[in-house]
Amino acid sequence: MKLLDDVKYDANGLIPAIAQDEATGDVLMMAWMNRESLEETVRTKRAVYYSRSRQKLWRKGEESGNVQEVHSIHLDCDADVLLLRIRQIGDAACHTGHRTCFYREVTDGGNGYTEKNDIIFDPKAVYKK
Amino acid sequence: MKLLDDVKYDANGLIPAIAQDEATGDVLMMAWMNRESLEETVRTKRAVYYSRSRQKLWRKGEESGNVQEVHSIHLDCDADVLLLRIRQIGDAACHTGHRTCFYREVTDGGNGYTEKNDIIFDPKAVYKK
Repeated sequence: MKLLDDVKYDANGLIPAIAQDEATGDVLMMAWMNRESLEETVRTKRAVYYSRSRQKLWRKGEESGNVQEVHSIHLDCDADVLLLRIRQIGDAACHTGHRTCFYREVTDGGNGYTEKNDIIFDPKAVYKK
Repeated sequence: MKLLDDVKYDANGLIPAIAQDEATGDVLMMAWMNRESLEETVRTKRAVYYSRSRQKLWRKGEESGNVQEVHSIHLDCDADVLLLRIRQIGDAACHTGHRTCFYREVTDGGNGYTEKNDIIFDPKAVYKK
């Protein structure tokens, strides 16, 4: 697969991938991919990331059911960032239950935040440990 | 400024910043910020990045005139990615003259690309060396 060789991975073998809602244009999250997760993403048309904290493939939604159907993949000019246009099943991308991970807006010249009222699910009910 | 302390910088002192067109929702680019560039971005309401290749502050548009007016800044759940909602002066964010850096869409199961027809300027005319 040509894409896997065109991509410029960083020193850890990773590339940032931005997930954008195909329908609304909302930026939902940014995570990381390695070569293997990118290959699986292209092949299965579902977003697969690489979890840096767990150091393994992260098939988005494997626990919550909130998978991301990948409609298109875009590579940037320097070939070191990916943009995925996706459909977010379950409407929430964030593990906090928010629709988007970017639910905090900076206010007061960098000294405060307002939080979006976009909670879709209760994380305690979704992630059973 | 509280934000500067809340942000989780990576091992190189950097955090990814996604620039999204406030009006259209288009994702235009992703670049990196350090503490100093983030401080200046918040204070001046113009996007200032940190250039990893040039190893210095990169006041977006300082050469091309294509500055980014920052309308809002959003911090993600893990505090390690920023989203800027901006107005792109000159309509093009990419140094190639394309409107967005993500002008290549992956096709053919990862073996080809289609290029967006969104060239706004001729780089040779804008960047005089």
